[in-house]
Amino acid sequence: MATHVHGEPGKVAVIGLGSMGFGMAESLLRAGFAVAGCDVTEQARQRLQAAGGSSGALPREVAQDAPVVVSVVVNAAQTEQVLFGTGGAIESMQQGAVFISSATMSPADAERLAARAKEKGVFFLDAPISGGAKRAASGELTIMASGEPEAFEKSEAVLSALAQKVYRLGDKAGVGASVKMINQLLAGVHIAVACEAITLASKIGLDLATVYDVITASAGNSWMFENRMPHVLDGDYSPLSSVEIFVKDLGIIQDMARSERYPAPIAAAALQMYLAAAGAGMGKDDDSSVARIYAQLSGATLPEHKS
Amino acid sequence: MATHVHGEPGKVAVIGLGSMGFGMAESLLRAGFAVAGCDVTEQARQRLQAAGGSSGALPREVAQDAPVVVSVVVNAAQTEQVLFGTGGAIESMQQGAVFISSATMSPADAERLAARAKEKGVFFLDAPISGGAKRAASGELTIMASGEPEAFEKSEAVLSALAQKVYRLGDKAGVGASVKMINQLLAGVHIAVACEAITLASKIGLDLATVYDVITASAGNSWMFENRMPHVLDGDYSPLSSVEIFVKDLGIIQDMARSERYPAPIAAAALQMYLAAAGAGMGKDDDSSVARIYAQLSGATLPEHKS
Repeated sequence: MATHVHGEPGKVAVIGLGSMGFGMAESLLRAGFAVAGCDVTEQARQRLQAAGGSSGALPREVAQDAPVVVSVVVNAAQTEQVLFGTGGAIESMQQGAVFISSATMSPADAERLAARAKEKGVFFLDAPISGGAKRAASGELTIMASGEPEAFEKSEAVLSALAQKVYRLGDKAGVGASVKMINQLLAGVHIAVACEAITLASKIGLDLATVYDVITASAGNSWMFENRMPHVLDGDYSPLSSVEIFVKDLGIIQDMARSERYPAPIAAAALQMYLAAAGAGMGKDDDSSVARIYAQLSGATLPEHKS
Repeated sequence: MATHVHGEPGKVAVIGLGSMGFGMAESLLRAGFAVAGCDVTEQARQRLQAAGGSSGALPREVAQDAPVVVSVVVNAAQTEQVLFGTGGAIESMQQGAVFISSATMSPADAERLAARAKEKGVFFLDAPISGGAKRAASGELTIMASGEPEAFEKSEAVLSALAQKVYRLGDKAGVGASVKMINQLLAGVHIAVACEAITLASKIGLDLATVYDVITASAGNSWMFENRMPHVLDGDYSPLSSVEIFVKDLGIIQDMARSERYPAPIAAAALQMYLAAAGAGMGKDDDSSVARIYAQLSGATLPEHKS
């Protein structure tokens, strides 16, 4: 096993080897880290082994001797499970090790989990990510992090391997989560309104490929329009990021906004469309499936997938 | 007066010398055109003269002998007025001259005006623009144009001087307007949701300059977030593009969508926020004023302008 020398790649554990987590593990391997990955599926574990890492079925197994553990699961409940549940990382993590939490969760959950970790002598870095699977694999994520200065110092090499930009947003957990929620509010609305616009374009008889070209060169463009609308143009709704992710994230935003007595009518309208897509059976499909709901509601036609 | 040689800069008339029109006139002057500009205000006309152009108070005066007339007014009613009203351009335009209409209007209005122009022997190019005042002045607009092939041919040099990209979307008026409305749906929602998000960020205690940095490097970014939110950060709501523009454009979209039996709930929610801003007395202020409505509704504080 590689010895961890400060500032040089040592061992790092990655918990959760989905589209984001596996890409992040690849970036860490490329940077010279010894990566031990954990996932509930045997297939994901074998895939990591084939890529040059080691693997285990339980967080406890892979976190052993890892000065830094990166958690790439979906939400607060899963984060709590992999850290504090039976077989969780906390059972084997050394005093002073760092748990980097990249799930999108409410600021209150991030603060609560950080406090529990601290009781056990482990640093919790509240470090949500943005950028999608492609950037995860190329080590070009954006990371929105907050936590104790020592946590940043100890995980510097890991963060550099994963991200093009690491924002250090504050000295306590919760700030990273807050900034991520602002990002998710925008991202969730941008996908839904992109679907609203592209399906209207179809309804009024415009050529969708042309509309895509014009919009991406115009003031109506967004990162999400540019990234997601090719799925609609190809009629390919196989999931890169699912409808349920935004049911969750816009749900957290609605909860936060309600608790703050802050009206967020545009995010609320977008959430209804994700709920409709999930209710219609597309919860596990790509989030651009919202376009199919607009088509169903309006009689518009959208491109079929050519397989 | 400069003689128009095909493909070389000759005379061009610009009707409407506001923030967009004046910038476009500057781009045409820089490209070597003899620019005759028209505006209702004496100040705008003098400004163009100081920049090297000539001017007149009536469209008829400046359109005289101009093979190409560029109209940069706000809506269909103004376009109809400058073309067909008393003292309108049609009174002096030569047979076969081209009227380039850059106002955002409904596809139905664009078709109707094009048909009226054709009766008088004048080409109507349905050519809405995108890009803002800065790009108008640098000749880097996006133009979404449709119309008869001869109209494109005759106005090629003018379009090149104005735009980085000219999309040729079809052979009849109305297609340019349709694509522009799709762009405006997105642009209008993106500004409003940017205001929803940045004011929520303030409400939960985040540093807004940091949020701006993170979002513009993340998947939540949009052209409009990046362009408009500095106004909110500076507390400067002096108008570059006003709230009333999106009251108009999202209104046209709602009319189009209703007529098509197409539900557009996200655009509808955004329109309510522009209506609130206009109703609260901010109709002529910058469209980022929607943030001040969110602040009023939620008790959030936003940066004050440092004058």
